[in-house]
Amino acid sequence: MKDKEFRKIAIVGLGLIGGSLAWALKKSGRIGNVTGIDSDGDSIDFAVSEKIIDEGYTGLREGISDAGIIVIATNVGQIVKTAKAIIPLAGKGAVITDVGSVKGRIVRGVEKVLPAHLRFVGGHPIAGTENSGVRSGDPGLFKGKRFVVTPTSKTDPKAVRKVASLWKTAGAEIHEMDPEAHDRIFGFVSHLPHIVAYSLVDTILSAPDAETLLDFAGGGLRDFTRVAASSPGMWADIFTENRENTLKSIKKFKKSLEKLEAVIENKDSESLKKLLSRSSRARREFSK
Amino acid sequence: MKDKEFRKIAIVGLGLIGGSLAWALKKSGRIGNVTGIDSDGDSIDFAVSEKIIDEGYTGLREGISDAGIIVIATNVGQIVKTAKAIIPLAGKGAVITDVGSVKGRIVRGVEKVLPAHLRFVGGHPIAGTENSGVRSGDPGLFKGKRFVVTPTSKTDPKAVRKVASLWKTAGAEIHEMDPEAHDRIFGFVSHLPHIVAYSLVDTILSAPDAETLLDFAGGGLRDFTRVAASSPGMWADIFTENRENTLKSIKKFKKSLEKLEAVIENKDSESLKKLLSRSSRARREFSK
Repeated sequence: MKDKEFRKIAIVGLGLIGGSLAWALKKSGRIGNVTGIDSDGDSIDFAVSEKIIDEGYTGLREGISDAGIIVIATNVGQIVKTAKAIIPLAGKGAVITDVGSVKGRIVRGVEKVLPAHLRFVGGHPIAGTENSGVRSGDPGLFKGKRFVVTPTSKTDPKAVRKVASLWKTAGAEIHEMDPEAHDRIFGFVSHLPHIVAYSLVDTILSAPDAETLLDFAGGGLRDFTRVAASSPGMWADIFTENRENTLKSIKKFKKSLEKLEAVIENKDSESLKKLLSRSSRARREFSK
Repeated sequence: MKDKEFRKIAIVGLGLIGGSLAWALKKSGRIGNVTGIDSDGDSIDFAVSEKIIDEGYTGLREGISDAGIIVIATNVGQIVKTAKAIIPLAGKGAVITDVGSVKGRIVRGVEKVLPAHLRFVGGHPIAGTENSGVRSGDPGLFKGKRFVVTPTSKTDPKAVRKVASLWKTAGAEIHEMDPEAHDRIFGFVSHLPHIVAYSLVDTILSAPDAETLLDFAGGGLRDFTRVAASSPGMWADIFTENRENTLKSIKKFKKSLEKLEAVIENKDSESLKKLLSRSSRARREFSK
């Protein structure tokens, strides 16, 4: 096993992200042992039988012993708690990392309790689908996608390189930023769009003829219902963990919405066209 | 030409919808003559050379003479004006129809000026892309899509059947509803989602680090930038023509958004999960 890049990786939480990462690492052939840990025995059995992991456990202790890197891939709301449970069990020098969609609270929360003989590196793979669970896993999920790593002044650079190398093995491109910048950016480009999609679907569901409206969802609503179909528990955690940025971005969004509302209300068609033109150009100019 | 279903169809406005309809009808082989009329000579030349139309004109008079059905496929804001220009030129018994995304004002506006020897039938094909122009045309654009026909008490049922038959020839499924029901439904399922998408992109563009934010658009924003890339002139017209429904739906949407904002603000995670769960189930339960 000398030629393996990593001897043993333990992944705690075999959901869509944890399962897909395990699978990508296992397929790469560059990891000595990929171990999965999940409280759900069925997920473990499925992952072992599909060769997504080498071995699996429902308990932390057996699973993380000897692991050089321990990836926490639980729900965002459980990450700090899980890290606290891992700390007394992890071997000297082990690198703990996570995949949470929110970084500030998690990174600062784990740093506060991290002993000197362990390392922690916050991370967030920008990939996913509206499905969840290891059964929706895909070893190609991270291919060409970004992995945002969020070191702080307290983070060991060697540990950052190890985590980056792990995600490169899974096919991701590495981007580095501090946890607070991450939460501001993703508050705007990911959490706010989900808030908006959930609210839009709620608007439709609150109408007396909701079924008729949904029957005509093809008229533009469909993309939004797809976004709003994402795991409600996961998103409730994300909005809660990134509360301040989410609330700030909602306030900014309401300003933009009210600007548009006012020009329609005032029949100001010149300003209306100008506003729409600016937004319509954005896609062509910036995004791919 | 006895076995042709229609002798001559004139389409006024060779954009994405008009061009695609012309093309679908021409390919069907069931129309004696498909004539295109557009003030832009280049669109006419392109459509003739690509065999999208049999002949084309930049002037109404030459184009619509002898046409049994005249389809107005201009921008929503131009439809009533175009109908008024067509009326003195159309032959006795001709059926005038349109493709506007708003129906109430258009149908009532044309009915007010329609002479007894002509027929008018309002319609709206539920199809399109974020592109525009005949060069983005597609003869399969309406295949399996809905065409909403909006007769009133004043509409000739025979004319409705003719228009329905035309759109069936282009591959569409026919749905009938009154113009006001149409505008209410599409205010919610199409116009509101576009308002929301434009506002969301405006929120991002208004941030000091807009370029960085757009660079991470993959995090959830991308679907919205696609919707907001739609033709600003067309959407300004739609919001203006369906002003009351659009404003009402914005108000309802703001209520849903503020409900979500309040539970995040109050750290009421039980209510937050409940709200998100309801929206997340909607897709699975109702839409296809």
